[in-house]
Amino acid sequence: MAVHLSAPNPAELFPIAGVRIGVTEAGIRKANRKDLTVVLIDEGASVAGVFTQNRFCAAPVQICREHLASSQGIRAMLINTGNANAGTGADGRARATSTCQALASRLGLSEQQVLPFSTGVIMETLPVERIEAGLDAAIADAKADNWLRASEAIMTTDTVPKAFGGQVMLDGVPVSITGISKGAGMIRPNMATMLGFMATDACVSPGLMQQLALELAEGSFNRVTVDGDTSTNDSFVVIATNQAAHAPITSLDSAAGQVLRAAMLGVARNLAQAIVRDGEGATKFITIRVEGGRTQAECRQVAYAIAHSPLVKTAFFASDPNLGRILAAVGYAGIADLDQTGIDLYLDDVLVAVKGGRNPDYREEDGQRVMKQAEITVQVALGRGEAVDTVWTCDLSHDYVSINADYRS
Amino acid sequence: MAVHLSAPNPAELFPIAGVRIGVTEAGIRKANRKDLTVVLIDEGASVAGVFTQNRFCAAPVQICREHLASSQGIRAMLINTGNANAGTGADGRARATSTCQALASRLGLSEQQVLPFSTGVIMETLPVERIEAGLDAAIADAKADNWLRASEAIMTTDTVPKAFGGQVMLDGVPVSITGISKGAGMIRPNMATMLGFMATDACVSPGLMQQLALELAEGSFNRVTVDGDTSTNDSFVVIATNQAAHAPITSLDSAAGQVLRAAMLGVARNLAQAIVRDGEGATKFITIRVEGGRTQAECRQVAYAIAHSPLVKTAFFASDPNLGRILAAVGYAGIADLDQTGIDLYLDDVLVAVKGGRNPDYREEDGQRVMKQAEITVQVALGRGEAVDTVWTCDLSHDYVSINADYRS
Repeated sequence: MAVHLSAPNPAELFPIAGVRIGVTEAGIRKANRKDLTVVLIDEGASVAGVFTQNRFCAAPVQICREHLASSQGIRAMLINTGNANAGTGADGRARATSTCQALASRLGLSEQQVLPFSTGVIMETLPVERIEAGLDAAIADAKADNWLRASEAIMTTDTVPKAFGGQVMLDGVPVSITGISKGAGMIRPNMATMLGFMATDACVSPGLMQQLALELAEGSFNRVTVDGDTSTNDSFVVIATNQAAHAPITSLDSAAGQVLRAAMLGVARNLAQAIVRDGEGATKFITIRVEGGRTQAECRQVAYAIAHSPLVKTAFFASDPNLGRILAAVGYAGIADLDQTGIDLYLDDVLVAVKGGRNPDYREEDGQRVMKQAEITVQVALGRGEAVDTVWTCDLSHDYVSINADYRS
Repeated sequence: MAVHLSAPNPAELFPIAGVRIGVTEAGIRKANRKDLTVVLIDEGASVAGVFTQNRFCAAPVQICREHLASSQGIRAMLINTGNANAGTGADGRARATSTCQALASRLGLSEQQVLPFSTGVIMETLPVERIEAGLDAAIADAKADNWLRASEAIMTTDTVPKAFGGQVMLDGVPVSITGISKGAGMIRPNMATMLGFMATDACVSPGLMQQLALELAEGSFNRVTVDGDTSTNDSFVVIATNQAAHAPITSLDSAAGQVLRAAMLGVARNLAQAIVRDGEGATKFITIRVEGGRTQAECRQVAYAIAHSPLVKTAFFASDPNLGRILAAVGYAGIADLDQTGIDLYLDDVLVAVKGGRNPDYREEDGQRVMKQAEITVQVALGRGEAVDTVWTCDLSHDYVSINADYRS
């Protein structure tokens, strides 16, 4: 079902010096399914994360924030599917902590050096004993060349594993970047997707990591939406193992900083867009670009109004150029002083509406032609400023309803 | 498909002295379908309206606002289905105006005394000539006892006509109230439903009418949502013909004012809830009550987050007590300082979550029992204040997708 999304290319998934990954089947919710992943990180890595803005953030998200703040040096991550450990109150926090302790004790670390991640059903009790029982097998499985297996092990309703990588030269030294992500529904990240992990062997000073993680999230995961439902568990972690032999990057605006940021943003964007391409029931990949706003924020506001409109999304599913629905969404996006007579609408290269009314030269068959494509760009010109922003989304199909009506059964 | 919504009860639809209604088949979009309605209002009536906040408001909405502001005394309304005359620019305004002129000239009125309303497909040219050709037949059909026919003539994707009425005694005199509404999709009114009309023969001073219309809209149409899509054409008009033989109401807080307001609010709420019960593809009617907020606005914000979550709506469709999705929606509703440990969640009388975690006594079969009902109340206690608000919505089913994927075909 995924829109133009093929399985990861193993040749692209560069091992990252300083990171080893192990996977096992812990039977957390279902048997015979890879559902537990450990990521082991060498000493000396710089690690930063951005997390959901959902006020009902899950227990592992709370623990991640605390452990990152404790600055003891993150050395491991523990990721389970099958259970989100969200809406679980104080008991959920205690359970997340005890899984960190269990992994830390096996690795000779403190619990604050472990970051926990959970994804799956909300408001169910985390089966700590099954996770602990799986840890030894996961640790035994750990190796540098396991990114593909990890991308499979973190899937829930995903139909395709999501993993991308790349290499850039810094000071004449090849530096590798590899990342994985998961998510297909409850996707309107407000910091990050449900789960996204990236690592590089580049040398990035710890003080820059949070800024780097934020910029990557803003340009990728924070610009995609499937259904507007911001998850309780969104987490995005970036690791720089500092093991490549180039001069450490101390500013993202330095020449090397710009090269690394651009390369990492490319991977992050691939990971984020892969989530939309694999959106629950998605049959179309939609790029919504809003230009001519007074601020980037108002462009984004309009783009999200379009991206979340069930009427717009069902029209894309039907390949029906019922494009007035897009204008309606622009109108209710919440810009109080928006003047409809300044607005133009393009569908790919087809000019549909001019100055708030139908383009006299617009022909239904032109709109129909674009709507039948698997990838479509909607472009709205607000005509009131110079700002631009872009959001990526998918259509709303029968399968979205089926998947979410059946998810727990 | 409509949830517990039966056809209007003709015995309830009291003729309103001073209002006559005529209906015809003008062939605006499809043949052999009642699609044009005229409402003729005696001189001396008080008329007020509230309209969509969508910045892409349709041409007829713009004309309505201007004609009401011109204070020439509204004497007629002209309502067509099959075409929304929205997203049509200056040409759309000219066409709406010319239909007003055509009706005005036949009735010996000025065009400013006519209010136009259109509903249907957006961004198509209004076929003025067909509307004009139907006017004489519509006027010839006009009679006081035509509310039911009008409720049928304003339907689009509605499966059931929506009409309610009632009587109250003011100064020992029976006063009648009758209203009709339409709408099933693109419903998240922000002033009113797509179309709602109410009339009473009560005597209400013109200065009170706008306040009365606003209060009625706030307590009814502005609290329902089907899909979160605020229409371009939402219009709600209230007419008091001032023909009943009681002392004119000069304050809504007077004894008679309170009686009339309560009775009219009851009818308005029935009209608004009927739209949700007939929501596109709806199989469940959901009441979302949020209490314990600091302000009514934040309660409403949380209620709408729940009401618009595709994940919550599909869980209702599936009768699946996947209630963590409700907590997730509460969490992303946008209350920055919300403390999840203060939140309780009820499903009807079943206490699901306490202080942000699962109620230890909650049993899945209790949630399942409630989720199977056709009418369900979700109650969220925020635990941070005394404010309360309520919103009504429906579930998201396969049929919603089918209806909106097929609407124009």
